Amino acid sequence: MSKSARFIDYFLSHREVTKDLVAKIEENQYTFKPTPSSMETEKLVQHILQTTYMFARLAHQQEPDQLIQGDENVSLEKQADLYTEKTLQLISSLSEEDFEKQIDVTRIFGQELTVAELLNVAIDHEIHHKGNLFVYVREMGHTDLPLYVKMN
Amino acid sequence: MSKSARFIDYFLSHREVTKDLVAKIEENQYTFKPTPSSMETEKLVQHILQTTYMFARLAHQQEPDQLIQGDENVSLEKQADLYTEKTLQLISSLSEEDFEKQIDVTRIFGQELTVAELLNVAIDHEIHHKGNLFVYVREMGHTDLPLYVKMN
Repeated sequence: MSKSARFIDYFLSHREVTKDLVAKIEENQYTFKPTPSSMETEKLVQHILQTTYMFARLAHQQEPDQLIQGDENVSLEKQADLYTEKTLQLISSLSEEDFEKQIDVTRIFGQELTVAELLNVAIDHEIHHKGNLFVYVREMGHTDLPLYVKMN
Repeated sequence: MSKSARFIDYFLSHREVTKDLVAKIEENQYTFKPTPSSMETEKLVQHILQTTYMFARLAHQQEPDQLIQGDENVSLEKQADLYTEKTLQLISSLSEEDFEKQIDVTRIFGQELTVAELLNVAIDHEIHHKGNLFVYVREMGHTDLPLYVKMN
């Protein structure tokens, strides 16, 4: 199995759970936040999707990009589908050698990281915020929640 | 840098944050839970500490073990210190070859995993539940929270 295929499995084992949670969120809950200082649900979901995509672009030495503009009225489910598709395209086009390449992320991390390290950081970031989102979705009244990771 | 030294850095980059959150929790908040169906704070913290330790023991093909019995009155901070110390001892005694060993975790995951894969699953599990804990601690009234990971 190639490195990109293996990484895609790993990415999807968490992204599929993110999408399952997003599917439970009604549009009138987009502004829900558990405390006044918390991030709103919609912002939290967008932060997850956009950050993983940003890291996948960085792996190709591409600048950050936003696929959906703030004034577009697109459901969170559709946003999750679009970001997932574009993120998968970027990861699947990485060669074996690409995973060893050094990427200059000193701006963000104060050091260079290999593409493999960078993508692992991206997933850790998604797992963290998906962990936040689990509590949000339970507070919206859902008690039948998935496991935090999808085993194959 | 050896594999165990590198893995210890990775483990501590998250465990130190878990401990920072635990240090904010007062004893009268141990039973706090955000919704009736949520895990109580004390149980959630113990679940994080015990599970990572259990995986580190599995890496040595040792059965699960509980360092503190339920009827002992030990603060969560002290429990975190003890479990961290014992988990570090287990990881630091792994040789380079140990990381490639297959461990039979078919009971839990339906497949064998290498020690390296098993320990990565352990950290993902901790990141997920630490992500839950961030929302709990914010709901306890804390707004000055650390970043989800400690960069060196």
